[in-house]
Formats: sequence, C-alpha cells, structure tokens
Amino acid sequence: MSLLVVGSVAFDNIRTPYGEAESIAGGSATYFSVTASYFAPVNVVAVVGEDFGEKQMQIFQGRPIDTQGLERAKGQTFRWRGEYKGDMNEAHTLETQLNVFQSFAPKIPPSYLSSEFVFLGNIDPTLQLHVRKQLPKGRLVACDTMNYWIQGKLDDLKKTLATVDVLVINEGEARMLSGTENLRRAASTIQSFGPSTLIVKRGEHGACLFRDKSIFFAPAFPLEQVHDPTGAGDTFAGGFMGYLAKSGDLSEAVLRRALVYGSVMASFAVEEFGLSRLLRVQPEEIETRFREFKAMTHFDV
Amino acid sequence: MSLLVVGSVAFDNIRTPYGEAESIAGGSATYFSVTASYFAPVNVVAVVGEDFGEKQMQIFQGRPIDTQGLERAKGQTFRWRGEYKGDMNEAHTLETQLNVFQSFAPKIPPSYLSSEFVFLGNIDPTLQLHVRKQLPKGRLVACDTMNYWIQGKLDDLKKTLATVDVLVINEGEARMLSGTENLRRAASTIQSFGPSTLIVKRGEHGACLFRDKSIFFAPAFPLEQVHDPTGAGDTFAGGFMGYLAKSGDLSEAVLRRALVYGSVMASFAVEEFGLSRLLRVQPEEIETRFREFKAMTHFDV
Repeated sequence: MSLLVVGSVAFDNIRTPYGEAESIAGGSATYFSVTASYFAPVNVVAVVGEDFGEKQMQIFQGRPIDTQGLERAKGQTFRWRGEYKGDMNEAHTLETQLNVFQSFAPKIPPSYLSSEFVFLGNIDPTLQLHVRKQLPKGRLVACDTMNYWIQGKLDDLKKTLATVDVLVINEGEARMLSGTENLRRAASTIQSFGPSTLIVKRGEHGACLFRDKSIFFAPAFPLEQVHDPTGAGDTFAGGFMGYLAKSGDLSEAVLRRALVYGSVMASFAVEEFGLSRLLRVQPEEIETRFREFKAMTHFDV
Repeated sequence: MSLLVVGSVAFDNIRTPYGEAESIAGGSATYFSVTASYFAPVNVVAVVGEDFGEKQMQIFQGRPIDTQGLERAKGQTFRWRGEYKGDMNEAHTLETQLNVFQSFAPKIPPSYLSSEFVFLGNIDPTLQLHVRKQLPKGRLVACDTMNYWIQGKLDDLKKTLATVDVLVINEGEARMLSGTENLRRAASTIQSFGPSTLIVKRGEHGACLFRDKSIFFAPAFPLEQVHDPTGAGDTFAGGFMGYLAKSGDLSEAVLRRALVYGSVMASFAVEEFGLSRLLRVQPEEIETRFREFKAMTHFDV
C-alpha cells in the first residue's frame, strides 16, 4: 500500500564532535521518504526553493518516491544550522531560515488521495489539520509534533490530535504535552486526546508503543559511534510507517515489528552525516539488523 | 545454591514527592538479602549498631536469611537522609552518618565460605578485595561500586575488578569508570578491567547485560507511580544474583532471565517506601510480572 508524507525539505549545516557538513539535504519529509521507500511507495508533499537543484533531486530518484507534490517556490529552501555536543542527545539550533517554508500551504495532488497511510510531519498543527481534512476518511493517519507547537499552539494541536490514529513524539514532548512526568500516565492522557496508538521515542534508550492496554518496548541499537543524530526521529517514523504500509495491517504484531524497523533504520541514519548511510543501506543489512534486535531482546520464559 | 552478600545495613530518612519516612531500615545488604531470599538462601555480612533492635531484625526472620555474619557493634547504625524530586531519577543526599559502618571490617563466618555466589555491595573497594581474598577460588563473584570510589579510589577499585566475574553499576558510573560516553565502548573498556559480565542499570530505562560479544536489553517496568526509588539498585542486584544462585548456572539464557528478575524485583521495591512492598510480595506476583516483561518485549521475526 502507498504512503503519503507531508513535511519539510531543507538544507542543513551540521556540526558534531565527529565533523561537520555544510548545505546537505535534510528535512523531515526527506529523511522520512528515503527511509520509507525501502518498504513501500511514497508520495511526498513539501516545498523547496530555487536552490534545490538536480543534484538534490537525485536523492529521490531511482526509488519508489513520487515527487509530484514537491512544490518549487520562488526563493530559498528552508535552512537549519545546528550542533550536537557531548552525548549528542540534544540538537542545539544555531540558526533557522524558514525561507519558502514560511508560507508553505500543503497541496495534495489528486493521485495522492489514494494513499492508505499518511504521515503528517512536524509542521504547524493548523496545516496538519488542513491536510487531514483533504484526505478521505478511513486513512491511517500518524503525526509528529514538537515542543514549539505544544507550547505555542496547544489548542490547534489538540484539534489535530483528535483526528489522527497515531502520534509519534519524543519522551520530553510526551511529558510536556500530557503535563505529567510518569510515562505510563502521560501515555493515557495523550491517548485521551485522540490517537489510539502512541509511539514515544527515547533516543539512545529506544522507543515504546502504547496501544489500548498494551505496551511494547524496544531498545535503540547500541552503536559504537554515532556520527550525526540529525533526522533520526524522522527516519524512525519512516521505517515505522513504511513497514505498516508494506504490511497493510495494524495488528499488534505488525505494529511491534514496525517499531523495531523504525529503530533499525534510525540506527543506520546516525552512522554517518545526513542521508549518506540511508541512501546506500541494503535490504539485507536492514534484515540482519532487525534480527540483531531480536537477539538483543529475546529471553525465554 | 547459596548466596553471600557483604554490604551495609542502615536507617534511612527519605522524602519523595509522595511522602516521607523516618528511621526505616535500609542499606544495600538489607534490600539485597530480602530480595534474593525469594530465590535462594542468603548469608549476610554487615554491621549494625545497638539501635538496630528486635523490630528491625524481624525483617530477616521467617526467610532463608542467615544473619550470623550480621555483626553488632558499639554505637549507632549507619544513617542516611535523602530526598528525591521531580522525576525521581536521582537521590539528593542531605546527611550521612557512617557511625559503626565507618570501621566496618567484614568478617566472613566459616559456614559462609561454601556460598557459591557472592555479591560485594557498594563498600570501599579495599574491603571488597579483602573479602574476595578470603573466599575459595571458583566462586562466582559480582560487585557494585559508585562514583565516590571511582573518583577517589580508582586504583584500588581496579584491583578489585580484576578479581570479579560480574560488575553491576549504573549508566553514569559506567561512563565515569570507562571515561567514555558511548555505552558499547564503555562496556568493552570495563570488561578489559576484569569482569567478563557487565550489567548496566539505566533507572527508568531498564538495564542491559554485556557478556562476550552479546548484549541484552530489558526495559524497566512502566509503573504508574514510583513512590520511593531507594534501594532499587540493590533490589535489582538481589533479584539478579538470587535467580543465578537458584539456577546454579551461568548460561546466557539464565543470565538474561536473571536480569529480568532483577528488574521485576526493583519494580516492586519502588512501589512503596523502604522495604514494605518487598517484604510482602508473593511468589506468584513475581512470576506474573516476569511474564508481563516478556509480553512487553516480545516481537515475532
């Protein structure tokens, strides 16, 4: 089944203790779609500026990624400059230039309306809701959000959450959104806002899935070296949603495997700067690492 | 098989966002032995003062805990006063009175020398080594330590580590001891100091086991409310070592189940202040929670 993603495409300037990269392609829709394309066909809705050229477009080529919805606007592409220090758990934003992203009004090409699975990347919740309303009922819709919207647009965010099936956020955001420190109670509160399934990303501590009364935990893959955490969350979401779209099924067993595939893909993403590792990961490497996750978490009762 | 623990017995004054408790029995050897006694017979070596009376001794009674090695010295028992705030991941020590613990020189009763499994609780590494040397070769010896010894007595600690099979420490301590942020590399460094097996406790993020090339992760049990984290680490160690002693086996499968039993027991410990929950947990509750851990981590390949 196919997957629709709405999000950002950006140029990133990144510095980590292991090096730096200037003007490399990034953004939530980019990480998400490259990752998800290993599992299912992806339709992208995003906006780029005139500086996003042939070289950058090659990222999407040769993969089952439809870029009809990648609007080209006058001006420059969204730019982000950030730095990671020490344990690299947190990005320090040094500069943000919204550029063409400032007036982004997502337009869904008619052919995209048949996508059964939808991921609303981390954009203004008003835009997320606007997209949601254009989609036929019955689509599985997941969304992401961030501190900025939780603090600044909570009412709008709650309207969006009331219309989605899955929310994918990080642990700090889950605490902020629910107003509670305790993860289990935070999850119940957030589920009461709308999404029946909640995925909480915990960085180097893995991720967990809350659904009805069930909870599932997966660790993060213990890499010897993380070079660049940029895009790890969107990559996780791409692996998760990609596997759901591939399976076309929302059973508990599929959701659990999807969460592990999300973790697998995120573990590749952070091995190198930007998208480089993701662009050349092989399907057999994905399967091998999936089985390594199983080996790292299995015990006999 | 039987289990020997050397550690502290204390009176604790604890304040958490959920209440406070004055002069309740605590200490590493106390939490450890009560917990381990659900799995195997325990021999305790520790020191108490004249204020540790009949009421406190009842903690050990009616359980397979031998208190011959619980020395009674002139003076007051070790006292600790601490507080937990916010997310309760960290204890803030408000006061420590070492009292009789200051001159603790562990004496191992001859009948204890047949214990096949040994846990050296968090005491001066010189004392840990002193105890280690009194024990016959071939015993499985695990130990704990803390920041204070890593910073102040690293050379002595390394001498102790060279003689033990298992080290059980928390994540921050693992980073400090190894001098590296990356958990996987930290584990390799620490294993090169001596212990072939390393257990890293990650608080609310669970625990992991490093052994040869294998890694195993278990989450923490997601409680709706943590009332008092005091003793959780020693309780974890008690469940882990207790299950090993019960199994009498060090296969990978047993070590993994032992780690989960450690997490199970720690999850009970923190449900109430001090030892109260641990003192009345039922074997069937332990088994039920163990199966809940399996349900929370299982996925099909």
